[in-house]
Amino acid sequence: MQRKEFIRNAGLAAASVAFVPTSQLFARKADQKVKMGIIGVGQRGLNHLDLLLRRSDVELVSICDVDARTLDEAKGMIQKSGKKMPEIYTGDNYAWKRMLDKKQLDGIIIATPWEWHKDMILGSLESGIKYVGSEVMIGTSLEDHWEVVHATEKYKANVMMLENVCYRRDVMAVLNMVRQGLFGEMIHLQGGYQHDLREVKFNDGVNVYGHGVEFGEKGYSEAKWRTEHSVHRNGDLYPTHGVGPIAHYININRGNRFNSLCSFSSKARGLHNHIVKKGGESHPNAKVNFRLGDVVTTSINCVNGETVLLQHDTNLPRPYSLGFRVQGTEGLWMDVNKSLYIEGKTAKPHQWEDAKAWLDKYDHPLWQRWSKETQGAGHGGMDFFVIHALIESIKNSKATPMDVYDAATWSAITPLSEKSIDLGSQTVEFPDFTGGQWMYRKPVFSLTDAY
Amino acid sequence: MQRKEFIRNAGLAAASVAFVPTSQLFARKADQKVKMGIIGVGQRGLNHLDLLLRRSDVELVSICDVDARTLDEAKGMIQKSGKKMPEIYTGDNYAWKRMLDKKQLDGIIIATPWEWHKDMILGSLESGIKYVGSEVMIGTSLEDHWEVVHATEKYKANVMMLENVCYRRDVMAVLNMVRQGLFGEMIHLQGGYQHDLREVKFNDGVNVYGHGVEFGEKGYSEAKWRTEHSVHRNGDLYPTHGVGPIAHYININRGNRFNSLCSFSSKARGLHNHIVKKGGESHPNAKVNFRLGDVVTTSINCVNGETVLLQHDTNLPRPYSLGFRVQGTEGLWMDVNKSLYIEGKTAKPHQWEDAKAWLDKYDHPLWQRWSKETQGAGHGGMDFFVIHALIESIKNSKATPMDVYDAATWSAITPLSEKSIDLGSQTVEFPDFTGGQWMYRKPVFSLTDAY
Repeated sequence: MQRKEFIRNAGLAAASVAFVPTSQLFARKADQKVKMGIIGVGQRGLNHLDLLLRRSDVELVSICDVDARTLDEAKGMIQKSGKKMPEIYTGDNYAWKRMLDKKQLDGIIIATPWEWHKDMILGSLESGIKYVGSEVMIGTSLEDHWEVVHATEKYKANVMMLENVCYRRDVMAVLNMVRQGLFGEMIHLQGGYQHDLREVKFNDGVNVYGHGVEFGEKGYSEAKWRTEHSVHRNGDLYPTHGVGPIAHYININRGNRFNSLCSFSSKARGLHNHIVKKGGESHPNAKVNFRLGDVVTTSINCVNGETVLLQHDTNLPRPYSLGFRVQGTEGLWMDVNKSLYIEGKTAKPHQWEDAKAWLDKYDHPLWQRWSKETQGAGHGGMDFFVIHALIESIKNSKATPMDVYDAATWSAITPLSEKSIDLGSQTVEFPDFTGGQWMYRKPVFSLTDAY
Repeated sequence: MQRKEFIRNAGLAAASVAFVPTSQLFARKADQKVKMGIIGVGQRGLNHLDLLLRRSDVELVSICDVDARTLDEAKGMIQKSGKKMPEIYTGDNYAWKRMLDKKQLDGIIIATPWEWHKDMILGSLESGIKYVGSEVMIGTSLEDHWEVVHATEKYKANVMMLENVCYRRDVMAVLNMVRQGLFGEMIHLQGGYQHDLREVKFNDGVNVYGHGVEFGEKGYSEAKWRTEHSVHRNGDLYPTHGVGPIAHYININRGNRFNSLCSFSSKARGLHNHIVKKGGESHPNAKVNFRLGDVVTTSINCVNGETVLLQHDTNLPRPYSLGFRVQGTEGLWMDVNKSLYIEGKTAKPHQWEDAKAWLDKYDHPLWQRWSKETQGAGHGGMDFFVIHALIESIKNSKATPMDVYDAATWSAITPLSEKSIDLGSQTVEFPDFTGGQWMYRKPVFSLTDAY
């Protein structure tokens, strides 16, 4: 069967990366530049643009955006870099289709509002592009996710979701520790997105962050579109920062899979309160009814018996925390108190130990090798690695280290949690996007220091 | 209707405590000693015995236990205190019934294995005792909980579950802060019981803690009975330390109630691994199949829109942590990192602040008044307050500050979580033990510095 065969091959190709010496990996297309395009050069796209411009192995062929202000920023960055100005597509919401019609790209990066990702991924695949790096969320509905999976299989292409937290330095050190068995057999994992986004969801239409309580047409940047999801949807709207690293820790889609999911949502107060506090009770937005509960708690169980807890908390005043907890039969790490405990190794029984010395000791080979290149890259350097992985996969004609099954599985948590909440927090079945191949697929993420 | 009338009266009586000056509260039976008995003077019962012996307002009339060793310990403590030796009941599992037949007690404390609590509470009520202080868990099945509620109503008595964490100093300071509105409207709360109990669940039949991997007949103290619950049951076996304080923060059964519950259970590895590690693979207990998942995660939603997350984690190596999080529209407190954040008050936006100064500033009046008396009392002094509350309620002929509805609601989380897990983590309805009176009942817990 075509589909299964493709997946098997992808699995083998990817698995083999682990055993090829690094020198060979870089041999193949070393003289050819990778031809890249970007759809969406807003705040997030500008980050990716910066990373592409830094690389000598990339030729930026085309960029697309509908917003003149951010396009100007992008052009300024490109000029400053001394690189050749790419073709620029703009003018209407379908300018990206004209860009794809040129059929000249090895790979594309999509960094647009969530609701555009699916169409742009499908359009890229249909145009013949074999490597698509999409910002997080590859669709809105569950059906969207299946469409992207099926199209990726049909076109024998790679769709990698650019989930940067998988590459956070402490997260990768812990991955190293997990793989070396320091925590024993994995039992329970936690993560999430706990980030006060009130000044992201609202601004004055001029500043990117805050200074007003506008959104939608009157907002700028993310406030223009992201806030609509808080008005209309109730679920874990942003699960991938938490679930991506967890999926690697417990080999989801690679010997393990998510089995079922249940979400609970609190009442929604934070966004309304923020509007009233900053804009007054008579501001028109004070009448908006936000559907997104302030705290959404999602439990997932796995066929191998682990439990996963995800938290989404973006409407209330609070310090940023992804809330990681990685717990096995021998001990656990938590990021909120920057501590761990490992039986027989932590000095004092029943007492937390500062995690720093452990994280330093088990620093992942990727970080050891590339930390110079991460300097100045977005989000503490971790953004470097997602782009690096995408570009190196293209250069080596290999499967991306995170693939469409990972992307669909992580991103589908949003519609699944919406469905669970809509049913009164009933537990819903988790789809198997791999069609049973999770039993055969092997872990491939960051097995070497290559990418 | 008799039942409703009783509850209303209990509610009113309890509520009135708050408005009576402290001096009057202590006036009534000040010259009469409170006649108390204890069923169960094991490790937990000895704690309560110590607290009763310290008090000049209590006459210890009778104690009961089936274990000669712990009875000897109890007698030694009593002799050392210089108080009169109580009547001692022992010899068989129904010695407590003979003790109750004497009908001479104002109040009784039950500190026996969980599976005995319900029968002993019912027996105490039937014997005419009006104040029953039961250690945590007032029953095993949901039906047990209803039986205790109905009997308490029938006999117009008080059943108080001796949940000591409600009186933990930081927990009470946070209650003070919640009531003064510092965290704003409550949104999401977390707590649990995360305590490596492997050396409690297993010992050598001589030592109370560890030194062997025996349990049941060959174990001593809690290992004699508590471990059986890990063999036979899968659920949140010990929810009350977490949920008690949370229930006070959000006025459960007093203007609010739990609506539904869902539990997820991880695989069970910790107890088996411990046996093999300490006792070898050939130890007979290495063949025991433990049903209790190592980490059980329970979500609850409330009719007022808050979400509650409870965690039960007692089989793995880990530091002790009840994992409290109290989050409202203005900020949150977490105990694992001993930090809080309050909008507009915490100095640096988006940054945690050490909670200590706040907890000191909002130290609860009860702790301010009674901290001398808590010196040397069990569990950092908090045990003093549960016994103090029970005795003062008796002296003042008032309802106990935590009543049978609180007890049933918190304790019922165990059978509800078992049911949810048994149904494949389906969400189950939370019973309303108050029969609708939660809409009318008012908060009464620790409103003054009296008890």
